[in-house]
Amino acid sequence: MAFELDGRLAADTIPVGDLMLSRVLLMNDSRYPWAILVPRRPDLTELIDLPVAERTILMEEIAALSGALRDLHAPTKINVAALGNVVAQLHVHVVARYDKDPAWPGPVFGKGPAVPYEPAAAAAAVAGLVARLGVA
Amino acid sequence: MAFELDGRLAADTIPVGDLMLSRVLLMNDSRYPWAILVPRRPDLTELIDLPVAERTILMEEIAALSGALRDLHAPTKINVAALGNVVAQLHVHVVARYDKDPAWPGPVFGKGPAVPYEPAAAAAAVAGLVARLGVA
Repeated sequence: MAFELDGRLAADTIPVGDLMLSRVLLMNDSRYPWAILVPRRPDLTELIDLPVAERTILMEEIAALSGALRDLHAPTKINVAALGNVVAQLHVHVVARYDKDPAWPGPVFGKGPAVPYEPAAAAAAVAGLVARLGVA
Repeated sequence: MAFELDGRLAADTIPVGDLMLSRVLLMNDSRYPWAILVPRRPDLTELIDLPVAERTILMEEIAALSGALRDLHAPTKINVAALGNVVAQLHVHVVARYDKDPAWPGPVFGKGPAVPYEPAAAAAAVAGLVARLGVA
């Protein structure tokens, strides 16, 4: 069976590119620098559904994305989370947080309606991630 | 410099034992089966502060703890998160979630006051994790 991106994840995000294991998505919410990794494997819900070798790759992709967001945004803190209570398909949030952002110090998940990017800002945010991650 | 557990993490949890890299703590909140991994290294804030070899170990400790909670509680979903907006010391939450728990489908973090375990329930919860993780 082939990998298919969950429709809700597709609707809420802008594609950035593919790393070795994961699709990288930019959350279409300009309130936070927020990206998502989705391992391109069918029928995954939990981290422990991944074989150990792919868990290792996923951890390194989390690290690469965290480093990219840190370089781009110099945040107060990086938040990493695999929740999946609303969208079951395994996905990992990596969010650059600031001590003055609207949800601080709480988590960003489920906090009010997203504020979509303007087209030029979306393009710039995607380009920054593409350049640092080396994805296309 | 030696590892020292953050005072707030110590106050909010009950010790379970030490895995190869991380201290395992039971969150003292009987509303959720909720454990925390704290890599026993000084001065860590982000996952990317860990060397790559230890990130791999941490991922496997997350998997082991996820598996233990799944075996013990048969949850709807497992939530994994490294946030650190309140307590900066690197720590990873692993929470067994139910579709009828008080915070579902939102995250559990910062949702109302904890409901501490009764002593016998705390001992049973710790013993279950100790047996499945092989820690002491």
